[in-house]
Amino acid sequence: MTTDKRPLILITNDDGFRAKGINELIKALRDLGELVVMAPDGPRSGMSSAITSLVPIKYKTEWQEEGLTVYSCTGTPVDCVKLAINEVLDREPDLLVAGINHGGNMAICVNYSGTMGATAEGCIFDVPSMGVSLLDHRPDADFTECCRLGRELAEKVLQKGLPHGTYLNLNVPTDIPVKGVKICRQADGRWVKEFKRSEDAGGNPVFWLTGHFRNDDVHEDNDEKMLDEGYASLVPCKLDVTDYEFMQELKDWMA
Amino acid sequence: MTTDKRPLILITNDDGFRAKGINELIKALRDLGELVVMAPDGPRSGMSSAITSLVPIKYKTEWQEEGLTVYSCTGTPVDCVKLAINEVLDREPDLLVAGINHGGNMAICVNYSGTMGATAEGCIFDVPSMGVSLLDHRPDADFTECCRLGRELAEKVLQKGLPHGTYLNLNVPTDIPVKGVKICRQADGRWVKEFKRSEDAGGNPVFWLTGHFRNDDVHEDNDEKMLDEGYASLVPCKLDVTDYEFMQELKDWMA
Repeated sequence: MTTDKRPLILITNDDGFRAKGINELIKALRDLGELVVMAPDGPRSGMSSAITSLVPIKYKTEWQEEGLTVYSCTGTPVDCVKLAINEVLDREPDLLVAGINHGGNMAICVNYSGTMGATAEGCIFDVPSMGVSLLDHRPDADFTECCRLGRELAEKVLQKGLPHGTYLNLNVPTDIPVKGVKICRQADGRWVKEFKRSEDAGGNPVFWLTGHFRNDDVHEDNDEKMLDEGYASLVPCKLDVTDYEFMQELKDWMA
Repeated sequence: MTTDKRPLILITNDDGFRAKGINELIKALRDLGELVVMAPDGPRSGMSSAITSLVPIKYKTEWQEEGLTVYSCTGTPVDCVKLAINEVLDREPDLLVAGINHGGNMAICVNYSGTMGATAEGCIFDVPSMGVSLLDHRPDADFTECCRLGRELAEKVLQKGLPHGTYLNLNVPTDIPVKGVKICRQADGRWVKEFKRSEDAGGNPVFWLTGHFRNDDVHEDNDEKMLDEGYASLVPCKLDVTDYEFMQELKDWMA
């Protein structure tokens, strides 16, 4: 299955293996290498880096053709990556691509996104890893421009690799043509007014997650701003979340 | 409920409101302020920063006494924090404490942990936030030393606050007495041999998450090493995962 000499590319997402985004991505990357897809069997948006520990997970082959195998998995996006690399693939992937997500994963969304959780997980295994998201939630969104930019980036990552502990977050706006790709920082901001109150059948209050993003970032190069202006944003991200700057002050606290 | 002038302390966890760890924490922080607990109604370990968007969430009052209200919530640890701050509390908390987790959240576990997901979420709301974990998974673990250190840190955070975008990850070993608290970096390493293969009733393979941590870090001050040596580890963490060092090279790639 994964015995040819071409690059081995592991693909996953959080919208499930049936989503248009991942299937467009498969087509876009098809001739770059041997493709193995291990994706959730249904929607897993907002799963972040969640892992399944209380129940076991399973996977099955959905379809297979020359140079492409598609598996579905009962777990989270991170479970998919762990399972593929630990149990299914017979060699280390040369690249992991997560997406294409239906909806943006800029700013603090990198924290909640299952797509970006899977991307970080690839990076934990030292696989050069990138997430790709389109700022359009619709099931029938047009991924053409996003596929073009995702493929260009995948080729670069295959060629150059990535530093240990670094992964990439590419977001693409819906404005056509995209003005270009800007290297950005993760915008500082948060979601506000996050719940819509409703009622269950018994008249008890229930809360649906909703809200809108408030951008508090003052830097020109924050991803949310660049996307607003019609650019694709590319943020290099780190696994190591240590706040090195604050370590000394904290040492003084504890002295 | 939250109208007194004492500090308002929001408490959550990922083991559920019935766990010993959170109840010991409540006792340890009881006289530091007005306590509001919003915790999952059952175990949510390994939920990272997962959010619930496909179904609504609910909460209910479990018990209430002078200066303490305990709510349970059907959602994830991050849902608990979002719901409390958006819909339940009548003022911003002065401190969020997540834990005490049954089991360590050092090294890359910060990425998977629901306890640390909740802590990061408090930080997103600009609430000074800290997670506390004991390296003992047992339901009846002894939290005495961990409570002492958690309370000391909570008092410091209440007094000094934390920088915007920074939260704290305190892990406490089981060796008594703890040698002290070391300010650490997040250890670089990963989990290996992560699945145990088993079979379902029909003889199909299923995979249970397991594995052990491999520490690849060469620095003296990594949290895993310090815990091994009998110290409690305190890692300051950042919400912003941008890899600023790699931005220029990435710009050169795309030029």
